[in-house]
Amino acid sequence: MQKVSSSTSSDEQFMRRALELAAKAVGRTSPNPLVGCVLVKDNQIIGEGFHLKAGTPHAEVHALSTAGDQANGSTAYVTLEPCSHFGRTPPCADALIRAKIKRVVVAMMDPNPLVAGQGLDRLREAGIQVDLGLMNLEAQRLNEVFIKAISTGLPFVIYKSAMTLDGKIATETGDSRWISNEISRKFAHQLRSYCDVILVGSETVHKDNPALTCRSINGKDPIRLIIDGSLRINENAKVLTSSTASHCIIATTLSASKEKIKRLDSLPRVDVWQYDTERYVPLNKLMRDLVRNSWTSVLLEGGGGLAGAMLQENLVDKVELFIAPKLVGGNGPSPLSGLHIERMAEAINLNDLSVDMSTGDLHVTGYIQPKV
Amino acid sequence: MQKVSSSTSSDEQFMRRALELAAKAVGRTSPNPLVGCVLVKDNQIIGEGFHLKAGTPHAEVHALSTAGDQANGSTAYVTLEPCSHFGRTPPCADALIRAKIKRVVVAMMDPNPLVAGQGLDRLREAGIQVDLGLMNLEAQRLNEVFIKAISTGLPFVIYKSAMTLDGKIATETGDSRWISNEISRKFAHQLRSYCDVILVGSETVHKDNPALTCRSINGKDPIRLIIDGSLRINENAKVLTSSTASHCIIATTLSASKEKIKRLDSLPRVDVWQYDTERYVPLNKLMRDLVRNSWTSVLLEGGGGLAGAMLQENLVDKVELFIAPKLVGGNGPSPLSGLHIERMAEAINLNDLSVDMSTGDLHVTGYIQPKV
Repeated sequence: MQKVSSSTSSDEQFMRRALELAAKAVGRTSPNPLVGCVLVKDNQIIGEGFHLKAGTPHAEVHALSTAGDQANGSTAYVTLEPCSHFGRTPPCADALIRAKIKRVVVAMMDPNPLVAGQGLDRLREAGIQVDLGLMNLEAQRLNEVFIKAISTGLPFVIYKSAMTLDGKIATETGDSRWISNEISRKFAHQLRSYCDVILVGSETVHKDNPALTCRSINGKDPIRLIIDGSLRINENAKVLTSSTASHCIIATTLSASKEKIKRLDSLPRVDVWQYDTERYVPLNKLMRDLVRNSWTSVLLEGGGGLAGAMLQENLVDKVELFIAPKLVGGNGPSPLSGLHIERMAEAINLNDLSVDMSTGDLHVTGYIQPKV
Repeated sequence: MQKVSSSTSSDEQFMRRALELAAKAVGRTSPNPLVGCVLVKDNQIIGEGFHLKAGTPHAEVHALSTAGDQANGSTAYVTLEPCSHFGRTPPCADALIRAKIKRVVVAMMDPNPLVAGQGLDRLREAGIQVDLGLMNLEAQRLNEVFIKAISTGLPFVIYKSAMTLDGKIATETGDSRWISNEISRKFAHQLRSYCDVILVGSETVHKDNPALTCRSINGKDPIRLIIDGSLRINENAKVLTSSTASHCIIATTLSASKEKIKRLDSLPRVDVWQYDTERYVPLNKLMRDLVRNSWTSVLLEGGGGLAGAMLQENLVDKVELFIAPKLVGGNGPSPLSGLHIERMAEAINLNDLSVDMSTGDLHVTGYIQPKV
């Protein structure tokens, strides 16, 4: 067994707390990262904070203000490298220096090219001891959305689906109520509140007429994005009429009727984004436009057509599948009809698979293995 | 915490050993149960045995012969009630009485109507202390095949399939090599050696031309059963020609050509069973005929048509699914095309689900919930 010094283990304990704090704001900080900070003196926590929302103070500022003068000589545990640039708030590295912090323990460097090590440099130059990399993997996982968006300009896309153990999303007659159990469905709603955008195709709107709001306790409604190349959406569809503060964006193409675009655009909280393509909405371009609007996480709930196309274009990062322990058989719809792969050897592989059975359904989570 | 007396815990330890011994013969005792026996004196094991094969001595006899005179005054741990009737071997209850066993600990009663408590009665009448029910659930699970066959006249049927995480058993172009990984495929071959019969439909023979032998180390080949209503099997098919000591049975109907039946029947180790139906082989009847031939466990590896029909007729007991963490999408074949259920609420449910991820695939095991 590896011997762990008591200082290492208390470092971990405080960093774990900082990660916990950071996670409290999941789904609310876009386009900013999730950050937690804990200030410790004589092995006691004297200040804590986390970043709540873009434009508001950073985690370090909250922690420093709780600690007050006590911060002098303390150790700061931060889940992400303190920033060194003036954004909407002043640099946190400077705030830590001013507060006379003695040591800063950082889980991961900030992948933002405006920071990327410069925050750590500034701390070191001020004579502060900097330790980088503690619980790095946990911190990277926590900020998978931020990392994806800042380093690629594309949002982090989670594909969510529910199916039977024999891979069906409905019976032969089209019945799909309900596949997964109540706890799984509640969790799926929770997922909506963790993401900036919920994405479906026009086929799903046409067939199921969903409101696409988050019906879980305290959840925020995501932006609702409908891909509708020919703008066939029914003007009474719930996504257009249901009462929510969140916007509904309809992405369409040159095939759309000008009059219908005008009518839809005039509805409250509805925007039509028209792309100059003939039939299909350019998915990669659309995804980049989401990030330009500061929406960095997308929950893809669409049917097999859209989900397949998103996978085919390498736009999906993670899958969340709820597999109910039941069999329905038949030739009803499969989850990814729109994905076309000819050879089994060319299948899309998943990494870091995990399965949770505690709800009675199999909740399978995995990450799409990037194509080499 | 519950306090466990030392006698209870050592009872469990010896019964666990008896169950371990019993399991050594899995797949080899049909139509007999798996039975293990441990003889203990002064907390030391003085004799052990398990039932190896129908027609050979029972577990108790093996254990008694190892122990010799020492058996006098000892405790016997038996996974199944000792028999009280003359079958191909004399009653074990009598042998235990003759050996002057003091106490007999039994995991479960024998569901065989010829025994069903009479073995225990005989022991009690001889003044032996009998304790029934220790590790009963484990013993029932161990003998699920025997229990099913003896109490219903139907074999215990395991449906095995491999699919992708999106529920596909092949790509759109029909490619299915390989879905699951090497360890899963090896385990699937092991499953064949645990079962008396391997069952596929004519479609699978036609498409894949499998030998249906067990290609795992030390595995025995199961009886190969092909359901082929119109007897369309190619006479050069590997199931007919491959070198194995195991028989190949072809179940067919009145639609079969008489000449072809004659030709096939004349092949070594090939039997044609013709049923007096017009087109479809009566599955329930066929299953009963297997048990009449002392084959009590069936591994159903067929394609979606046959597997669906077997499920529809409530002839499947357990599922073993190997789900590979990959996505292929498309409209390729689903595992249970032959099962037709209209409402999601009427889906076939699975109980006692377990998932093993240690091989890299999801190996999902579950039991079909009986219809009420």
